[in-house]
Amino acid sequence: MRRFFGKIEDDFAVIEGEEFAHLKNVLRMKEGDQIVVYNKSEIEFLCKIKELKKEFALAKIEKQNICPALPKKNITLFQAVTKRDNFELIVQKAVELGVKRFVPFLSEYCSAKEFVNKKERIEKIVLGACKQCECSVPMIVENVVSFDDMLRCASKHNLLLFANEREGDNFDFLSLKNAEDIAIIVGPEGGFSEIEKEKILEINSKSVSLGKRILRSETASIVLVGMVSILSGN
Amino acid sequence: MRRFFGKIEDDFAVIEGEEFAHLKNVLRMKEGDQIVVYNKSEIEFLCKIKELKKEFALAKIEKQNICPALPKKNITLFQAVTKRDNFELIVQKAVELGVKRFVPFLSEYCSAKEFVNKKERIEKIVLGACKQCECSVPMIVENVVSFDDMLRCASKHNLLLFANEREGDNFDFLSLKNAEDIAIIVGPEGGFSEIEKEKILEINSKSVSLGKRILRSETASIVLVGMVSILSGN
Repeated sequence: MRRFFGKIEDDFAVIEGEEFAHLKNVLRMKEGDQIVVYNKSEIEFLCKIKELKKEFALAKIEKQNICPALPKKNITLFQAVTKRDNFELIVQKAVELGVKRFVPFLSEYCSAKEFVNKKERIEKIVLGACKQCECSVPMIVENVVSFDDMLRCASKHNLLLFANEREGDNFDFLSLKNAEDIAIIVGPEGGFSEIEKEKILEINSKSVSLGKRILRSETASIVLVGMVSILSGN
Repeated sequence: MRRFFGKIEDDFAVIEGEEFAHLKNVLRMKEGDQIVVYNKSEIEFLCKIKELKKEFALAKIEKQNICPALPKKNITLFQAVTKRDNFELIVQKAVELGVKRFVPFLSEYCSAKEFVNKKERIEKIVLGACKQCECSVPMIVENVVSFDDMLRCASKHNLLLFANEREGDNFDFLSLKNAEDIAIIVGPEGGFSEIEKEKILEINSKSVSLGKRILRSETASIVLVGMVSILSGN
């Protein structure tokens, strides 16, 4: 069934703006069609379209239940800013894999220092991925922070994994099974500087190796987040 | 150090064609510069550029050793044809993650039935990814096969994993540690039909769940291949 983000008002869901345009003009949905509506809460609303107005659609709520695809664990991804295409890919995959909080940061070898946090575009990617993976609560994307601010935030997490290319240790992924709060740090295309690596290890992170081949930043991010999510039962 | 594919002739490496153009015109390398040359064998050749001719570069081999990034395990990916961008992403990531053999196939819900196996373009992606992840032997990409031919090939593997969305079982990824030969089947954007699923299960595959969220085909592929590769010690 098709999914849309909308507002809930009493027994009705209201679909407006781009979501409405997609429903009406792209999918050509009609009165009587069934849809699922998310309002960014943990509830999913099964609705039937009642009226298609000029500016919005009104749908009657027929049933509501807790969204079954909500992430169970608290996974935070501290992701260095990468080139735009890769960055957007990482954001999309992080949503699919159940990351709850996404914190972009700048480090020495970031290739995109001029990165402007295009909030609207990123939000659109997040909402699109939510609908695709059928998760009603969008991942929180923070504003870009500095490397030192990232360290301060990351140090507050009990279990902090650091994708350290070929230098990392053989991490016991089985130990993730009982972890509730997991944070992951992934560097930019150019990797971290030696000083940055030292600083990350000083805040008690676990340095994780992803094998002998050099992975691109987005590959490391998607694979490590995927493993953490699946093996922790997220 | 920069990596190039070339021919080995006695004590010299010869870099021609697009690889030469990249070396000379893009990277503007000079005589005396050090490079690593791959000839698609398991050996990597450390060379010093001796002469830049009009059509090729000649580099003297100074040292040679077994490439340290070769995959240790035999991982085969049976990947349903997806939209071009996603397909190319999957090919690139499969190389980085140490897949040895890649078999594209067509199934009922493939969105790209008109898929033409653009051998040259795919080969370019494979070689680019090899250089990026520092692996001297390129992944083998087979021609596209039918669903039934895929089943026949896949059934010959001892350990066959099938990405079965939310219907899969809780696979014990730890059991991968001692596996030498592992095959993975991933469906297209539209998933497999019920009949196809039954057929895949009949050839003794292990149905693997990747969590409660619906993953895109390329996400399922990258994450499952990544987990198999890392947890098997590939």
